[in-house]
Amino acid sequence: MAVEIGIGLLGCGTVGTGVVKWLQENGAVIEKRTGIRLALQGIADIDVDRDRGLALPPGLLTRDAEAVIRNPKVQVVVELIGGIDHARKYILQALALGKPVVTANKALLAEHGAQIFREAEKNKAGVFFEASVGGGIPIIRALRDGLVSNRIRNIYGILNGTCNYILTRMEQAHVTLAAALKEAQEKGIAETNPALDIDGIDTAHKAVILASLAYGFHVPMSSVSVEGIRGLAAVDMHYAMSLGYRIKLLAVIEEQEGKVSARVHPTLVPQASILASVGGVFNAVMIRGDGVGDILCYGLGAGRDPTASAILGDVAEAARNLASHACRHVDGFSHSGAEHLAAIGDSRARYYLRLTLLDKPGMFGQVGTLLGRHDISIASVLQKENCTGKHVPVIFITHHARESAFRAAIRELDGMPGAGAKAVCIRIEDF
Amino acid sequence: MAVEIGIGLLGCGTVGTGVVKWLQENGAVIEKRTGIRLALQGIADIDVDRDRGLALPPGLLTRDAEAVIRNPKVQVVVELIGGIDHARKYILQALALGKPVVTANKALLAEHGAQIFREAEKNKAGVFFEASVGGGIPIIRALRDGLVSNRIRNIYGILNGTCNYILTRMEQAHVTLAAALKEAQEKGIAETNPALDIDGIDTAHKAVILASLAYGFHVPMSSVSVEGIRGLAAVDMHYAMSLGYRIKLLAVIEEQEGKVSARVHPTLVPQASILASVGGVFNAVMIRGDGVGDILCYGLGAGRDPTASAILGDVAEAARNLASHACRHVDGFSHSGAEHLAAIGDSRARYYLRLTLLDKPGMFGQVGTLLGRHDISIASVLQKENCTGKHVPVIFITHHARESAFRAAIRELDGMPGAGAKAVCIRIEDF
Repeated sequence: MAVEIGIGLLGCGTVGTGVVKWLQENGAVIEKRTGIRLALQGIADIDVDRDRGLALPPGLLTRDAEAVIRNPKVQVVVELIGGIDHARKYILQALALGKPVVTANKALLAEHGAQIFREAEKNKAGVFFEASVGGGIPIIRALRDGLVSNRIRNIYGILNGTCNYILTRMEQAHVTLAAALKEAQEKGIAETNPALDIDGIDTAHKAVILASLAYGFHVPMSSVSVEGIRGLAAVDMHYAMSLGYRIKLLAVIEEQEGKVSARVHPTLVPQASILASVGGVFNAVMIRGDGVGDILCYGLGAGRDPTASAILGDVAEAARNLASHACRHVDGFSHSGAEHLAAIGDSRARYYLRLTLLDKPGMFGQVGTLLGRHDISIASVLQKENCTGKHVPVIFITHHARESAFRAAIRELDGMPGAGAKAVCIRIEDF
Repeated sequence: MAVEIGIGLLGCGTVGTGVVKWLQENGAVIEKRTGIRLALQGIADIDVDRDRGLALPPGLLTRDAEAVIRNPKVQVVVELIGGIDHARKYILQALALGKPVVTANKALLAEHGAQIFREAEKNKAGVFFEASVGGGIPIIRALRDGLVSNRIRNIYGILNGTCNYILTRMEQAHVTLAAALKEAQEKGIAETNPALDIDGIDTAHKAVILASLAYGFHVPMSSVSVEGIRGLAAVDMHYAMSLGYRIKLLAVIEEQEGKVSARVHPTLVPQASILASVGGVFNAVMIRGDGVGDILCYGLGAGRDPTASAILGDVAEAARNLASHACRHVDGFSHSGAEHLAAIGDSRARYYLRLTLLDKPGMFGQVGTLLGRHDISIASVLQKENCTGKHVPVIFITHHARESAFRAAIRELDGMPGAGAKAVCIRIEDF
């Protein structure tokens, strides 16, 4: 005999509709595997008239989110409203009533996660957020449970399908970023206003969640250095290819000597690495633990159905905890840990550096000397013979250098007599 | 204040030593994340004298496994003895006492899983087996929890690091299987007796566990069609490469029209697929769910530390369930489901077929006619011009055909006048 657990849904847009659809279609699968019947007891949305293609009992859909939260039959609250203020208010209300919350709201958790997890702890109610990072990929669960005995050394994530699609098209179809973005918009992959995606903000929100979960304290957005793909030139994609790399927008999270850093930037990754083979709209997260070594999880990072899959996995877990009178309320990131944050500029990396130099003797020597003064040594140089004109592009691959030293060197290079266009520099991660 | 949960360890060989090492080194990490202190209360091994490089309190190590199981301070039992009979006896004893069991014993679960899960259900004690498939990769958890709302359509697994290492070396270093195996043995990757690995038995054990978990009934070993890599010729690796494929030893699990099949065989996979980029000793599992789409998890599938990571993840979960008085006892595969098994021979696939044909007119036509009689049509043909001699190798790639039809056609081809060496046929999976 299955135990019945009541679910309340706040927000019935694309993902919410997917959750209802899959609950109706595969509720029996969940019941068979868990012994729990998930019963939808209320859905709140500002639009109660639109045809969503769902068969819903009359009275289930309402404009009154607070009534759904208060409904005593609702035992688990699913927040899919998005945005910050309303979502936060409703989540805090549900937690104050001791009801566990499932959410996909990455921006909210990245900005206000500490407050939400504090409220959850106070009321011994769980917050589940698998859908906030990597769509249907069970990466939160892997990090939280499967790898619980590991100290996490690094996390590398391709976390934004729109950016990865654009980069894949630039590489394969030899088009500019603008053309690839237009194509993505026409296919419904990119938003009309793509800023959150291509400027790296969405990736940074997800990086905050992964870093906070991995290290157990709230890594604030303000500590994340963020660079999107907007400035990326097709020519650098092709130089990277010819040097044995691909360019991916990566979230890079590191712990070194007890200090945690998180950053988001276009990155050269070796073509032979498995992360390089993640193409199109797919996402992937590589986690390096001290025991487990490298683990990679890959899948669709967005879309109605993969996101609904993650939401329902969380709902089933929350429901199972309720059915067995257990609760999970210690795995969020309610605490601040400013003392564990690395200073931006302290990280070390190899760099791809494209300079536009006057084609005259002595220029290479000048660049080498300048870099040497900043303790940066050169691993290899690429200059194509068929370049003509007064200024020519030259690619330098450096050995490891401190980010702050590198930034200082770039400022000098840009001011050097004989330098043409501004230097282009992209980090390299060799894994 | 952390809750303390007592652990008993049966078997302290390589993996057991790893579990103790990581518990000592990273116990504080687990405690910080879960609020639970895991306390080792007893270790049983037939060898109590060997130096394992561990600092253990006197009296902790004993030859008496049953005393460890009975010890009232031992609340979770970890079975790392391996083999069947002793391991099964001790697991059943622990479960009879209501103590949850963590095991990495894939052969035992594949052969006797139904009995073990029945005993677990009877006593409301959990059995945790993340380490039995894919080493440190949290794939059991992904399938059991994260994807719980999905009907699983397919699972494709590279589940044996030894075989994948051998295949990678054959492909990259152009060596024979025998040479690659010898190299793997010298490096400690392959056993002195490699039969369990290279004949596909180990992969089949893991396929049984994944299939049983995905479909909720015990898929018996006897229903799995198993072909290892022993007969694989280097020449087929190279033809496969030139046709845009790589050869991997795959476990393929499918559900079609309510019927489940599991098989293990060398398989041509497209070079562009992410499974093709899984090289060396790495393992990977791709799961296709109806909601989530394709998910891939990748990592080290064996070795002391990755396996210990999986074991400790399970121990932490078992301990957390005990601490919150919850238990998980419904997710194994205690039931038989013979009516849901597909008949071997019913599956459909494309095939790579290498024939050795007499170099004379009309042979192609004869082959085409013969295949056509079995309802098998040809997608493409490859014959290298520089082949000399009376018999020449010819590669046919077929369209989808029934396995039983294909096997019948092969028998006829091998008996055809003008056929040289026996036909080589390898399945193709296009994902």
